[in-house]
Amino acid sequence: MSREMVVRIGLLGFGTIGSSVYRLIEKEHDNILDGTGVDLQVVKVLEQDSRKIPQDAAPGVFTADFSEIADDPSIDIVVEVIGGTDWAYTFLDEAMRKGKNVVTANKQLLASKGRALFDLARDLRRHLRFEASVAGAIPIIKVMRESMIAAELHTVYGIVNGTTNYILTRMYNGEGDYPEILAKAQELGYAEAEPTADVGGGDAAAKMAILGSIAFHSRVTLSDVAYEGIQDVSQEDVRYAKDLGFVVKLIGAARLVDGRVSVRVYPALLPQEHPLAAISGSHNAVFLQGESIGEIMLMGPGAGGVPTATAVVSDIVSIANTKDVGFLQSCSCYRSLDFYPADEMESAFFIKVNVEDRSGVLAQIAAVFGTHGVSVASLIQKGQGDEAELVLITHPTKEKNFFAAIEQVRRLPSCKNEPMTLRVL
Amino acid sequence: MSREMVVRIGLLGFGTIGSSVYRLIEKEHDNILDGTGVDLQVVKVLEQDSRKIPQDAAPGVFTADFSEIADDPSIDIVVEVIGGTDWAYTFLDEAMRKGKNVVTANKQLLASKGRALFDLARDLRRHLRFEASVAGAIPIIKVMRESMIAAELHTVYGIVNGTTNYILTRMYNGEGDYPEILAKAQELGYAEAEPTADVGGGDAAAKMAILGSIAFHSRVTLSDVAYEGIQDVSQEDVRYAKDLGFVVKLIGAARLVDGRVSVRVYPALLPQEHPLAAISGSHNAVFLQGESIGEIMLMGPGAGGVPTATAVVSDIVSIANTKDVGFLQSCSCYRSLDFYPADEMESAFFIKVNVEDRSGVLAQIAAVFGTHGVSVASLIQKGQGDEAELVLITHPTKEKNFFAAIEQVRRLPSCKNEPMTLRVL
Repeated sequence: MSREMVVRIGLLGFGTIGSSVYRLIEKEHDNILDGTGVDLQVVKVLEQDSRKIPQDAAPGVFTADFSEIADDPSIDIVVEVIGGTDWAYTFLDEAMRKGKNVVTANKQLLASKGRALFDLARDLRRHLRFEASVAGAIPIIKVMRESMIAAELHTVYGIVNGTTNYILTRMYNGEGDYPEILAKAQELGYAEAEPTADVGGGDAAAKMAILGSIAFHSRVTLSDVAYEGIQDVSQEDVRYAKDLGFVVKLIGAARLVDGRVSVRVYPALLPQEHPLAAISGSHNAVFLQGESIGEIMLMGPGAGGVPTATAVVSDIVSIANTKDVGFLQSCSCYRSLDFYPADEMESAFFIKVNVEDRSGVLAQIAAVFGTHGVSVASLIQKGQGDEAELVLITHPTKEKNFFAAIEQVRRLPSCKNEPMTLRVL
Repeated sequence: MSREMVVRIGLLGFGTIGSSVYRLIEKEHDNILDGTGVDLQVVKVLEQDSRKIPQDAAPGVFTADFSEIADDPSIDIVVEVIGGTDWAYTFLDEAMRKGKNVVTANKQLLASKGRALFDLARDLRRHLRFEASVAGAIPIIKVMRESMIAAELHTVYGIVNGTTNYILTRMYNGEGDYPEILAKAQELGYAEAEPTADVGGGDAAAKMAILGSIAFHSRVTLSDVAYEGIQDVSQEDVRYAKDLGFVVKLIGAARLVDGRVSVRVYPALLPQEHPLAAISGSHNAVFLQGESIGEIMLMGPGAGGVPTATAVVSDIVSIANTKDVGFLQSCSCYRSLDFYPADEMESAFFIKVNVEDRSGVLAQIAAVFGTHGVSVASLIQKGQGDEAELVLITHPTKEKNFFAAIEQVRRLPSCKNEPMTLRVL
């Protein structure tokens, strides 16, 4: 290395990720210095909970007072890993105003208040980096921002929530039904005691808002993302899907359609040959399609303190090595696109419904579908006493037509339960 | 964007990749300017073959004289996509000496003469970028150099040759034997008329030399890589492997073992659940393992003019946005590690051999294996008249012990043909 560059870091939060960042920088300090010329020094750590302060901490490093970091002119970069959207926002705002570049792992913050933070970063010419906010150790932000420059991305599919992928993988393997596997996942620490953000799709939605913003250079906030979770997916649905050659995954889908953006999260059937179908357990993956690149997929650990810390560290070193020309500093949203109406989107669907087991019922349902322009690609019918269970896969159709057809099917006297519907990717 | 930066490019070569770079910059010029503030201008193109010059080329852009590029002080970046290791070397050397940063897609050049070029780049403080040299559009170089900074990589497995992966995928699907599928691949343009570099493993070896150098920060040249091709893999081998739950792939394996480096290329059996097993057709993929990251995989198109051009363009923009601190400028090999002797490496093996079909023969072979400390994990035996075909998978063992055992097996009078052996990953 020709020249060493000391980078002094203020770390906000010493939970799972914060302590991993601290330890990783300690452990890899010399390798990073040898490899990049950057001499990383964590000089201050903000942590309110004094029980978390490690015994080997040098005196004066840990503080409960943010101003000790904000007002220390020797600190170059502030790393925010406290989570939440209130204090985190206040701290990042103040840090940038006081001359610091910032790194955050906070997806909820970026997906809800990203615009204000990115605007501030642009105005003040600060770096705002966020590799760790989506998909943990997978460097999807860097790849999309720096390597997909000429890719003309039009589609981003993500398996960006490890908890739901773990649950769905176990359901696919026939290891139990949803409530049972969720309980096991909670026991093993793969799911939170309050699992709603994960199983309900909100966590994935925040991440997809970030990925959608980067992919299409147009701001997507959490409130722009329609999302559904996996709570209503049964082991039986998963098994039927498997019989038909599909895997059920919680999919984030960001698409550019006719110059408009659509970002959604829902459980969906994927053909078993799809690269995302092979992503099992708590792994994350992001699948990119673009005119110039065809398709590219990245997969890896989507969570965990140490893997996520590697993303934070790469952001820090990246800031130290980037010229101040605007591009990698802050926001990549240089345009403002409209959103595509959800019910105008096209999708194929999986339907499971119980009907009276008598002749003519199938014809009746087929007629309803036909009226709405929905055509059936494959069908399983199983007798069960007086009732038959129908499982259908449709060809792609406008969603509003499909749901109009389903509304009519559910009102048929021969329809015996609430039809279960899932999209097919 | 706060400020625009004009980047003037001299392009060496107007073949498949060169013309794709030219067209991609033309097509994406405004998007790149909006997204990055970089105003890309291809001002000179070196091409000896005047028939390749497009009719819409502006006068004075195409030249057959390299000095028009080297001696033009307004050119910032020289992009080398002519291939070969002689002129390409001379041109890159001269371009750097004349003040230009350089981008190359030339794996053979880097794997054979990389050290001299990287040393020159370091001494002159020039950027030497090479994203397109390995795995086409997959941004594996950027990810390894910039995102895996704290990953402590110890293993890199690559499917980095699309031709062989295409052939092996078709063999796996039972579409024919090796010569037949190779002929079809040649017909369809998936394989060269002279396919040796691809099917013999040399192309993959050059790429793995590059990936190994980056992963372990220690120079690996092509001559350090032991490589084998897929010419001797039969449809029957692939079918037996499939029956045992494996997929056969041409694998590049770069490993750091006890502080020493091993880089090799060979056809190997992968468990069907391995993420690399799902990489089909002409796709490439690189699978990274490291202490801090667990495992990460990238997959995508490994070749093709336009996908490869996206990698070249991202290199150009990356140069325009990187501070001159040494780290991303040139070589990442800051240490010099020894190589691990191949025959000391451990591997599991697949063996297929014909033997006399009489009692005692299996015991004889098992005894030979036992003497050399090779233990059998699974076995298929099929009678065929006077002969039986044995297919075995061993547990991992030192390769020299395994090959000593095989040498002894082949000399047994009951052994009827040359044993076929393949490694198991």
